[in-house]
Amino acid sequence: MHLDHVGIAVDDAAAASETFRRLFGLPLALERTVEDQGVKVVKLSSGESFCEFLEPLGPDTPVGRFVAKRGGGLHHVCFAVEDIRAAIADLEAKGVEMIDREPRTGAAGLPIAFLRPESAAGILVELVERKG
Amino acid sequence: MHLDHVGIAVDDAAAASETFRRLFGLPLALERTVEDQGVKVVKLSSGESFCEFLEPLGPDTPVGRFVAKRGGGLHHVCFAVEDIRAAIADLEAKGVEMIDREPRTGAAGLPIAFLRPESAAGILVELVERKG
Repeated sequence: MHLDHVGIAVDDAAAASETFRRLFGLPLALERTVEDQGVKVVKLSSGESFCEFLEPLGPDTPVGRFVAKRGGGLHHVCFAVEDIRAAIADLEAKGVEMIDREPRTGAAGLPIAFLRPESAAGILVELVERKG
Repeated sequence: MHLDHVGIAVDDAAAASETFRRLFGLPLALERTVEDQGVKVVKLSSGESFCEFLEPLGPDTPVGRFVAKRGGGLHHVCFAVEDIRAAIADLEAKGVEMIDREPRTGAAGLPIAFLRPESAAGILVELVERKG
């Protein structure tokens, strides 16, 4: 598994990502609003990984509650896997509680699934399926 | 610049890293106590990046205060640069306030420097010099 991206919760994804582009020269990879997740996503490339800025569409969303409680900041890490269903089955066999027992489609159109932080040392971890 | 690692503040770096090794199959890359930073470091490899678990050696350390205040969690991101002095000069020319205006030596024996979060969209960002 490799580190696919770090999710960063912010008030203003355009402003925060522009700051990272300007300071660190990271190119824009994706910009999308995901209504059913209540989030605007701006992704910057950083080698084989990404920095993913997440702006809540409203206070009553997962990222909105995180920003209200913690004032924004690093939100989750995501590992890339070849076969997400196999990875979920393996994690559940190891006793992990998944938030998503079935993969759903993420902002980039790829299958994703989140683990419960209680199962992963208190850290919110996402898996994304990337073939090859 | 590529994403070198994500720093994760925890109560128990051995336990948290063991959980990530068991769940995600990430191999151990480094285990070290850095007395002058007040921190025990356990690093796992994840593709070209690392997950860096940080355990405070006491409450009155930067990581100890973070764990006391926020209960642990994702702490910082680190980008690899070819020439850290040139990177610091470039960032300062762009108005960034550095925590470390001069590079110091990190856990892996490489030159590192941190930016003030106020200069980087509220995120604690580290640079590490990796040649080639």
